[in-house]
Amino acid sequence: MKGWEFTGTNEPLVLVEKPDPVAAPGTVIIEVKAAGLCHSDVATLRDPGWMKILAKVPIILGHEIAGVITEVGEGVTDFAVGDRVGVCPVGKDGLGPGNGRDGGYADKVLVPAVDLVPIPEGVTFAQAAAGTDAGMTSYHAMFQKGGAKAGMKVGVIGIGGLGQMAARAAVVAGCDVYAVDLSPAARDLAKEIGCKEVFENVSDLAAVAPELIVDYAGFGTTTADAIDAVAVGGTVVLVGMGKLQTTINTSNLILKSVQLKGSVGGTVEDVAAVYELMAQGHLNPTITEITFDEISDGLGRLERHEVTGRLVANLE
Amino acid sequence: MKGWEFTGTNEPLVLVEKPDPVAAPGTVIIEVKAAGLCHSDVATLRDPGWMKILAKVPIILGHEIAGVITEVGEGVTDFAVGDRVGVCPVGKDGLGPGNGRDGGYADKVLVPAVDLVPIPEGVTFAQAAAGTDAGMTSYHAMFQKGGAKAGMKVGVIGIGGLGQMAARAAVVAGCDVYAVDLSPAARDLAKEIGCKEVFENVSDLAAVAPELIVDYAGFGTTTADAIDAVAVGGTVVLVGMGKLQTTINTSNLILKSVQLKGSVGGTVEDVAAVYELMAQGHLNPTITEITFDEISDGLGRLERHEVTGRLVANLE
Repeated sequence: MKGWEFTGTNEPLVLVEKPDPVAAPGTVIIEVKAAGLCHSDVATLRDPGWMKILAKVPIILGHEIAGVITEVGEGVTDFAVGDRVGVCPVGKDGLGPGNGRDGGYADKVLVPAVDLVPIPEGVTFAQAAAGTDAGMTSYHAMFQKGGAKAGMKVGVIGIGGLGQMAARAAVVAGCDVYAVDLSPAARDLAKEIGCKEVFENVSDLAAVAPELIVDYAGFGTTTADAIDAVAVGGTVVLVGMGKLQTTINTSNLILKSVQLKGSVGGTVEDVAAVYELMAQGHLNPTITEITFDEISDGLGRLERHEVTGRLVANLE
Repeated sequence: MKGWEFTGTNEPLVLVEKPDPVAAPGTVIIEVKAAGLCHSDVATLRDPGWMKILAKVPIILGHEIAGVITEVGEGVTDFAVGDRVGVCPVGKDGLGPGNGRDGGYADKVLVPAVDLVPIPEGVTFAQAAAGTDAGMTSYHAMFQKGGAKAGMKVGVIGIGGLGQMAARAAVVAGCDVYAVDLSPAARDLAKEIGCKEVFENVSDLAAVAPELIVDYAGFGTTTADAIDAVAVGGTVVLVGMGKLQTTINTSNLILKSVQLKGSVGGTVEDVAAVYELMAQGHLNPTITEITFDEISDGLGRLERHEVTGRLVANLE
């Protein structure tokens, strides 16, 4: 097998050849068909703090994986050779591909069967790879942490990659969605995907007083303004890390009995829900495809903000 | 009947004589035996903002009420004349005594039966009055919002009036309670009531990483430090309004999936739970008693911070 290994902070990824992985009990081997490139991989390359987070170094990066099962280990009954699967990037054992064990910037990868999600018909490998991390994270914040339900008034802050998927999923679920973005183009997109109203500022949401506001931007003031704008007894979910601190009005938090929830990651159920929305044609994230050999260069393009939509290496 | 009426901001309370209230359907008339004096009554006297909160002006203040039922209205089946009862200060109809309708600084008061709590044997009227607001609020934050349960590691910030009741209730419930207070005397008290360890600073809680931290102080940095110290997936409940804003580290909130919940008020169930703890001898708040005629002066004493423990007017 071949893979792109991370060897240390500020070192370029190294293309290595290694013996093929063998399916241990409870795991499968996947022939990787698509691997998504993520900004957190850029952070891994640049931020020395990641040396403590990674379970081992060197390690093959890549945590947005879709492919076909080529081998199943002992005790695996829910999946079979030939199945098209995506991989939940948050491993049930606390490890995950690309940080807890070798990941998907490779032609083969070992994955515990409990972290697999079947890819429905009509969903491409590239979509399935893109749906794992960004899709799962945005869906988890909106539905698991936020508890979005039909008929609920929901505010979505930041109609970027995550926010637009969540806003669309909430519209499909029957929520009245109110989108906030500084960009006129993003607001136009929000209207196209079915949002009921769009606003330039979070404080404008106060007139609506949504029961739930999910902040995919996280620019400090966005979270503070969301707490002030949300309904009595309402929930604000914070996903975006645009700024790493916020100064909030605690009297509004207390007197309105508001809850502020941080949300990160998600589960196989979230990935499965995102795949289902993709299969129904509701979610179709913009994807820029590259080859396996371009993965290292691709991370450079991400770092220089040269990419539109999600960047996915196509290994088919 | 006689009562102390609020007539306007910065006006002294006026002692008035009015016709006795008559029990409307679903309500009872209580002969007031004890009425607690609360700092929020001082705020009502001084802060013009309260003129908009009060359902009517003039109004008889007083929302910590205990007494004996002298009349029951049509349809009231759960309570009878002669019953000793306390009153939940948060009315189920959204109104409450002393702000939504005439309150307990009076010898008689009308109360909806749904807001009544029987006073168990062994609990005095003065205790029952003190148990309504402070007891209910501290209990609600710890158990309803915080979900404190046996075996849970719980941090309590601020071992003042509310914090010490909650800390004791959590100890009785089987939690491992870790108390934080700047005052050595408060820390000594925390040890006496069964806290497992006591600390001077909230950041010291990080070594324990409690699953739940309830902040009864609310001095901004206490809440921020609680978010940093709480366990992964943990909950911080904010009750205290020592400062009205806090600057929090959102990366810790997000990456640890922490939830921050504002908590205010409570329910009849919370008041009943507090009464039960009082009946069992677990809670015995320090009470300073005054007469009915001293209520107006008593609010002055509260304002000048001249009172130890809860101030209660005894009408027996």
